[in-house]
Amino acid sequence: MSDRQMPDLQSEFDPRNLEITKVGVKGLSYPIVVQDRANGTQHTVASIQMSVLLPHHFRGTHMSRFIEILNHYRGNISADNLQEILAEMRRRLNADLAHLELEFPYFIEKQAPISKARGLQEYICRFSASEGATAEDSDFVLAVNVPVTTLCPCSKEISDFGAHNQRSVVGIQVRYNRFIWIEDLVAVAEDSSSSALYPLLKRRDEKYVTEYAYNNPRFVEDVVREAALNLEKNKAVTWYRVEAENFESIHNHSAYALIERRKEAPVSRQPE
Amino acid sequence: MSDRQMPDLQSEFDPRNLEITKVGVKGLSYPIVVQDRANGTQHTVASIQMSVLLPHHFRGTHMSRFIEILNHYRGNISADNLQEILAEMRRRLNADLAHLELEFPYFIEKQAPISKARGLQEYICRFSASEGATAEDSDFVLAVNVPVTTLCPCSKEISDFGAHNQRSVVGIQVRYNRFIWIEDLVAVAEDSSSSALYPLLKRRDEKYVTEYAYNNPRFVEDVVREAALNLEKNKAVTWYRVEAENFESIHNHSAYALIERRKEAPVSRQPE
Amino acid sequence: MSDRQMPDLQSEFDPRNLEITKVGVKGLSYPIVVQDRANGTQHTVASIQMSVLLPHHFRGTHMSRFIEILNHYRGNISADNLQEILAEMRRRLNADLAHLELEFPYFIEKQAPISKARGLQEYICRFSASEGATAEDSDFVLAVNVPVTTLCPCSKEISDFGAHNQRSVVGIQVRYNRFIWIEDLVAVAEDSSSSALYPLLKRRDEKYVTEYAYNNPRFVEDVVREAALNLEKNKAVTWYRVEAENFESIHNHSAYALIERRKEAPVSRQPE
Amino acid sequence: MSDRQMPDLQSEFDPRNLEITKVGVKGLSYPIVVQDRANGTQHTVASIQMSVLLPHHFRGTHMSRFIEILNHYRGNISADNLQEILAEMRRRLNADLAHLELEFPYFIEKQAPISKARGLQEYICRFSASEGATAEDSDFVLAVNVPVTTLCPCSKEISDFGAHNQRSVVGIQVRYNRFIWIEDLVAVAEDSSSSALYPLLKRRDEKYVTEYAYNNPRFVEDVVREAALNLEKNKAVTWYRVEAENFESIHNHSAYALIERRKEAPVSRQPE
Repeated sequence: MSDRQMPDLQSEFDPRNLEITKVGVKGLSYPIVVQDRANGTQHTVASIQMSVLLPHHFRGTHMSRFIEILNHYRGNISADNLQEILAEMRRRLNADLAHLELEFPYFIEKQAPISKARGLQEYICRFSASEGATAEDSDFVLAVNVPVTTLCPCSKEISDFGAHNQRSVVGIQVRYNRFIWIEDLVAVAEDSSSSALYPLLKRRDEKYVTEYAYNNPRFVEDVVREAALNLEKNKAVTWYRVEAENFESIHNHSAYALIERRKEAPVSRQPE
Repeated sequence: MSDRQMPDLQSEFDPRNLEITKVGVKGLSYPIVVQDRANGTQHTVASIQMSVLLPHHFRGTHMSRFIEILNHYRGNISADNLQEILAEMRRRLNADLAHLELEFPYFIEKQAPISKARGLQEYICRFSASEGATAEDSDFVLAVNVPVTTLCPCSKEISDFGAHNQRSVVGIQVRYNRFIWIEDLVAVAEDSSSSALYPLLKRRDEKYVTEYAYNNPRFVEDVVREAALNLEKNKAVTWYRVEAENFESIHNHSAYALIERRKEAPVSRQPE
Repeated sequence: MSDRQMPDLQSEFDPRNLEITKVGVKGLSYPIVVQDRANGTQHTVASIQMSVLLPHHFRGTHMSRFIEILNHYRGNISADNLQEILAEMRRRLNADLAHLELEFPYFIEKQAPISKARGLQEYICRFSASEGATAEDSDFVLAVNVPVTTLCPCSKEISDFGAHNQRSVVGIQVRYNRFIWIEDLVAVAEDSSSSALYPLLKRRDEKYVTEYAYNNPRFVEDVVREAALNLEKNKAVTWYRVEAENFESIHNHSAYALIERRKEAPVSRQPE
Repeated sequence: MSDRQMPDLQSEFDPRNLEITKVGVKGLSYPIVVQDRANGTQHTVASIQMSVLLPHHFRGTHMSRFIEILNHYRGNISADNLQEILAEMRRRLNADLAHLELEFPYFIEKQAPISKARGLQEYICRFSASEGATAEDSDFVLAVNVPVTTLCPCSKEISDFGAHNQRSVVGIQVRYNRFIWIEDLVAVAEDSSSSALYPLLKRRDEKYVTEYAYNNPRFVEDVVREAALNLEKNKAVTWYRVEAENFESIHNHSAYALIERRKEAPVSRQPE
């Protein structure tokens, strides 16, 4: 018996008159290949969510088609062809609106500041894309999480020696109108902190990084403001959300700050 | 030397002209006491986030004051006095807007359907509250996560015997204008599923629950629609967001659905 | 129809001739009350695992009985009555050997070093207990995870100013022959680190803590050795395992160390 | 100033007379390439722990050397060359004993049972390897986590129709004396369950899988016994540990079972 001869409950009429905002698959782990500024492409593993808007008159969606589409594109997924994948989702699932979210570790080779020793550092990134019939329904958000050091300005100021510092994570999300590399947002986050992190530091690097952070104290508030200032200047960015979380070395909780802003339209910004 | 004689960097003027949307503490674990419909109160442990809006002219907020406020109220935190805590946060931190989020396990005693054997079941709940100078700035969202069973209608229909089923989580978030118990939302979620879960089932209960679920097949789409229909009828609810995630027993990923809707104002709904 | 009239597959003979090392329930969340040195008792929420040895001739165990026993004791679970609970598990499940593991957040009120401001700090603790027919089969391990500060001795030594520091977690597990409080192991861990953490610090406390840590630099190796030296001296401790993990503020990975040692029998220790 | 001219605190003499069982790096995320039975190699991302035994007379180890070694081998890490990496760790860190642990998602292409539709399924795997001066100090454990379906025999037996089932995870760890593929252990786990999972099922596959599971009911006890029987027969396996956890669809907790056994030496097993 073929599928077509079997009952298709999902295609039945639904009398409840309720549109479903999103329906699809979630928590799907899949190997993908993404664009990499230094090396062309990079192999990684993504946690994927795919969904569509379901009109009120259908009882359900056809979940297996999401997997079929994903299989087709797994060798090449990038910010460039998400629109194509979303269009295919809309077509195969007869949907007015489709959403695709991929979260994945992305590795960048970093050089230690003095010894130039190299190693790979992981950044958790996310693409969240939507496409609908109108421009308003289409959306793309690039998110990057960047681990950094923060050194407390207050602790430095009030103490005769030393200053507490800790690992922090800076999360940057942007909407943009010209291509932005993951590497660009990583640079914004690292420049906003007391110091970047490095996978591999020799002793002379450790001295440099320690003194550099001591000379660049930053509150969690400073980190989000510095990142926001940078993103304000970047004309390609039309909306941003910057978060910073310091895993405080003197407390068992985090200090946290967030700035979110949709920029004014270009015309109204000219008087600035 | 007292604190007042020490430098206070946080109170310094900040020249960057950027307001911080939220700044505060996060990932703070604290024992709390919450209201319990059956027993008056219940002891539990919350993960807490407290933050305020920081005007552009201040460099930082005073993080220790959040902890002082939390300490003061820890013996009695409920949906009833969150407004009071938020008002205290605004006063102590000189803030126009304050936010408080508590996520905690909440336990409800459940009886097995036939044997009436009793046990406690955990539901992860969240209070998200904000208060500002105007009514528009004030907000309260109650969220409840309810584990349930879902049995697949398609699998039942096409198979000669059996039907795949699995544990699912139904997440309900509501804004409301009259008090709603956590227990009320738990009932909405359980009624929308193929069957409620139980901590303790004897064999005669297991027979009942197995047959009950088989008689009530539900797609993930059905679960969110049934819950949404129920919340549409509840006049106290002014906004809702219902999510369901099925940890599919035939796949290594989840099926997922979401309905979110802000109800029309009562007056404008009459012509419907 | 009562349970006794229904088929009981679990009690059937199993022909595979394989004893099951452990079988039971896991990931069960339950409110419990534990002993608290300062306040008598403390309400918290535990993640629980209960299991028994299943002889080769039975097909299965009766899972609902674990929950019945847990229900009976939930108002009062402490290191003192675990043996009683285990005995009840052995009796109700006809088992030669029973295991019980409870992991829970435990809160201790801490005073800031100068201002004496108070707040609660969370420590994740675990009781792992077993009981069998012989003394050899009976076991009890107390585990405590203690968040602390570590300041890097190398970074301090080689840098002209400052030193990188970070939050670390010290995990201590012990077997003992005389009662030991959770609070005792917390003190061992905090004394082994560069500084304890505090939920609430005013500016004069922050100065104190910053300078204290700078004066007490500790590698991850130092932390486990200092804790081990302390546990070696404690005659109540018969076995210990100390782990420390530094969430390095200059790297995106942790530094880690572990010392595990079963002490010699008392007789052979006398010549020390 | 070069590293050699800077103080090297780690190489100093330590007077505490305590050997450190393990010291190294943990929680390090790194892209790796592993052997793949179907395709030769597979790109994935590992969470890595590397450590050595530290003799009592040294104060610390040199953490940066772990990263240097990892960098050198990242293009080709497999069960085959772990011994070589461990030997390099021992040499570079002057250590008698070295440990290496890699945990990573591994993908296998699976075909749906009827439609033969293909998709990738994720299995979380772990290599834990040690090498010391003697054969006794050397060790290798291969661990595989396999998601499967389990259908409850009791529920099927006592119910007039249907049977509760759910996703489960079967964890198999083995020591062996002849090469075993990850794919071999996946097959053991899937054969022990009520049904394998599939990334992609069309309706005719879903009918097949539903009926197949109904015809193969398995308690969590059955799953570990079936897997153990299979591993007993495999002469390459010298030790195994099998665990199964059912995320019960009728409870909010798991059913759990474990069998661990070191096989007798071949000679002593002949009289069986």
